[in-house]
Amino acid sequence: MSRFLSDRLSALKEYIPGEQPQDMKYIKLNTNESPYDPSPEVKKAITQKRAAKLQLYPEPDCTELSDALARYYNVDRNNILIGNGSDEILNFCFSAYFDNKSPVLFPDITYGFYKVFADLYGSDYTQIPLNDCFCIDPNDYIGKNKNIILANPNAPTGIALPVSDIETMAASNPDNIVIIDEAYVDFGGQSCAQLIKKYKNLIVVMTFSKSRSLAGARMGFAIADSELISDLNKIKYSTNPYNINSMSQQAALAAVNSCDYYEQNCKKIMVTRDNFCIGLEKLNFEYLPSCANFIFAKKTGIDGKTLYLELKKKGILTRHFDSPRIQDFLRITIGTQQQMDILLSALSEITEEIL
Amino acid sequence: MSRFLSDRLSALKEYIPGEQPQDMKYIKLNTNESPYDPSPEVKKAITQKRAAKLQLYPEPDCTELSDALARYYNVDRNNILIGNGSDEILNFCFSAYFDNKSPVLFPDITYGFYKVFADLYGSDYTQIPLNDCFCIDPNDYIGKNKNIILANPNAPTGIALPVSDIETMAASNPDNIVIIDEAYVDFGGQSCAQLIKKYKNLIVVMTFSKSRSLAGARMGFAIADSELISDLNKIKYSTNPYNINSMSQQAALAAVNSCDYYEQNCKKIMVTRDNFCIGLEKLNFEYLPSCANFIFAKKTGIDGKTLYLELKKKGILTRHFDSPRIQDFLRITIGTQQQMDILLSALSEITEEIL
Repeated sequence: MSRFLSDRLSALKEYIPGEQPQDMKYIKLNTNESPYDPSPEVKKAITQKRAAKLQLYPEPDCTELSDALARYYNVDRNNILIGNGSDEILNFCFSAYFDNKSPVLFPDITYGFYKVFADLYGSDYTQIPLNDCFCIDPNDYIGKNKNIILANPNAPTGIALPVSDIETMAASNPDNIVIIDEAYVDFGGQSCAQLIKKYKNLIVVMTFSKSRSLAGARMGFAIADSELISDLNKIKYSTNPYNINSMSQQAALAAVNSCDYYEQNCKKIMVTRDNFCIGLEKLNFEYLPSCANFIFAKKTGIDGKTLYLELKKKGILTRHFDSPRIQDFLRITIGTQQQMDILLSALSEITEEIL
Repeated sequence: MSRFLSDRLSALKEYIPGEQPQDMKYIKLNTNESPYDPSPEVKKAITQKRAAKLQLYPEPDCTELSDALARYYNVDRNNILIGNGSDEILNFCFSAYFDNKSPVLFPDITYGFYKVFADLYGSDYTQIPLNDCFCIDPNDYIGKNKNIILANPNAPTGIALPVSDIETMAASNPDNIVIIDEAYVDFGGQSCAQLIKKYKNLIVVMTFSKSRSLAGARMGFAIADSELISDLNKIKYSTNPYNINSMSQQAALAAVNSCDYYEQNCKKIMVTRDNFCIGLEKLNFEYLPSCANFIFAKKTGIDGKTLYLELKKKGILTRHFDSPRIQDFLRITIGTQQQMDILLSALSEITEEIL
C-alpha cells in the first residue's frame, strides 16, 4: 500500500478468490466451475475470423446478446444488463444503492464478496446469522424496511429458498432494493426472474460461469425493471462502457442459443451430486441439502483445514473457509462422476488414516 | 433513473462513447481504432482449443501477460497491472487517489472521461485551459502540490509533451499522484514509462486498443511503482478479481510477442498521417500537429457539426465534440491510405458544395 491511497480504502480487506492453478495437475473442485466443456456452438463461435475483427471496439450495449437473454427469460431487452462477470453486476448494485443511508441485510454465511463490497462503498450493513441448520430464516428479512442481498441457492451451503419467500421479501420491503444472486439456480433451485415484472425493487443476478461453462469468458447479467437497469447502465457508462469484449459476447450468445446442451449438463451434474451424497453417507460424512453444483460437507473428528490439506496432497482441490461456524466444512464442487469417485476414494483413505 | 439510486449518482453525467455501428457500412474514422488486423500470431492464439477451456476461471493475476509486458517495457512484473481496457485502469486510479481531499488538475480539452470519473468519485478538480495553440503549458502543472492527469499525446488534439516536461511535473509534485495516459504514445510520442523507476508517484497508463489493434479484446495496463500497483490491485480484488477473460489474455500475450508487426503498422499510420496532412493543406484545412493516430482539423467557414453530418451522409464517420472551444473541429482517425484518399475527396466535394 502506498502513502497516496485514499483513507477510505486503506483498511479495506479485498476478496480472496479460490486457488486457480493453471497447470491442471489437480482435480479442481474448488471454484464451482462446470466439469463440462462449453457447447460445440460456443467453440464454433470462437474463430480466427472473429479474431481478425478485434481491432474494432465491441458493441457496448451487447444488443444481440441482450435480445437473446430477453427471449430466453421472457423479459424485454431493457430488463437486461450484461456484466463482465456477475461480480461486476454486484459491484454496480452496491455502488448504486447501498450507500450509508440505505442499510443492507445479508446472512453471516454467504458469498464473501458482499461484505467486501459493503466495506468498499461504506454501506451500513447487518449480517444476519443463518439458523442452526444453516438455513436463511425468511422472517429475518420480511418487512424490515432494509435493502437485502441473498444468494439463492446460498453459498457455500447450497440451500435454496422457494420463490414464494423471495416474493414476500420483495413485497414487504417496497422502498428498498432486494438483490437475489442466482449464480447457482440452474442446479435445482427456482428462479425468481419473472417476479421483476411485478416488483420494481427486485434485481436478479445471474452468471455464465457455472451452468453455462463460461467462467473463462467473464459473463454475468442482471434482470430487473428497466429503471433499475438504467441506474446500473449509468454506472457502467461512468466507469467502463466497453466492459464486454467481442469474443465473450459471441461465446455467450452461442451459449444462450444452445441451451439444450447446458440443460443436459445440469441434469448430469445433479445426478452426480445425488450419487456423491450417497457416497458421503457411506463414509459417515454430514452434508447440507444442496440445490447447487457443490456440496458443503464435514466429517466429525476431522477439522476442515486438515481435510482440505490432505486432499490437496492427493491432487484434489476443494475450498475451505476459515470462519468460526463453518471451519469444519469443505465446499466441494460437483465434477464428473469419475472425479467424484476418485474424491470419495481419497476421503475414505484420509479418514482411515486419521481416525 | 429509479427512485432508489444513490443521491451521489443522480446528477452524474455518464461518458458517451463514439458511435459503434456494427454493420460496417461506414468508413469508420471516429474511435481511433487501428485500420489493420491484429497480428497473425493473435489470430492463431484464438482457437477452438482455447474455447474448450472456457469453463475454467481465468488466471486473475494475468501472470504470463504481465511478465511479457514487464520484459517489453524493461520493468518488473510487480510494476504492471492489467485492466479490462485502460478505462478500467483510470477508474481504479480515480477511486484510489482522487477523493475530495486530494484535488486533481487536468486540461479543459482532453479525454472526456476524466471529468466523468472526477464527478463519480466526488474529486475536487480544476480544468486548466489549453493555451491558444491548444497546447498544455507545463508551467500550469509544475510545483502545484496537486494531483495531475494528462493524456500524452493529448486527445483530441494529438499534441504531445516531451518526457522532460512530464519528469518536471512528477518531480515537483512529490506528494501527489501524476497519471500519464499514453493511449496514443506509439504514433510518434515519447513514453515516460522508464521514469516510474525514479518517481514513486507516477502512473503510466497504456492500452492495446490503438497501436496493438485489440480494441475488441479490452486490454489496458498500468506501469508504476510496485506500491501503487498494489493499491490498484486492492481495488481490483475488491470489485472484480477475474476482470480479464482468458481469451483476451492470450490475444494480448500474442500481441506483445509480435511487436515487429505492430511497430510496422504504426510506421504505416504515421506515413498515412503525413500524406493526409498534405491533402488537408491542399484543401486549405487547418489542423493541429499530431503525434497520435488521429488529426484534429477544421475548415474556416464550415462548422464542425455540418462537416461531420455531411461526411456521415457520404458513409464516413468522424468524431465531433460539441464544446465551445473545439466545435469547429473534427477528430479524424488515420485509417488506411485508401480510406484517407476517399475522405479527402469527400471533404473536397463538401467544401465545394458549401463554400
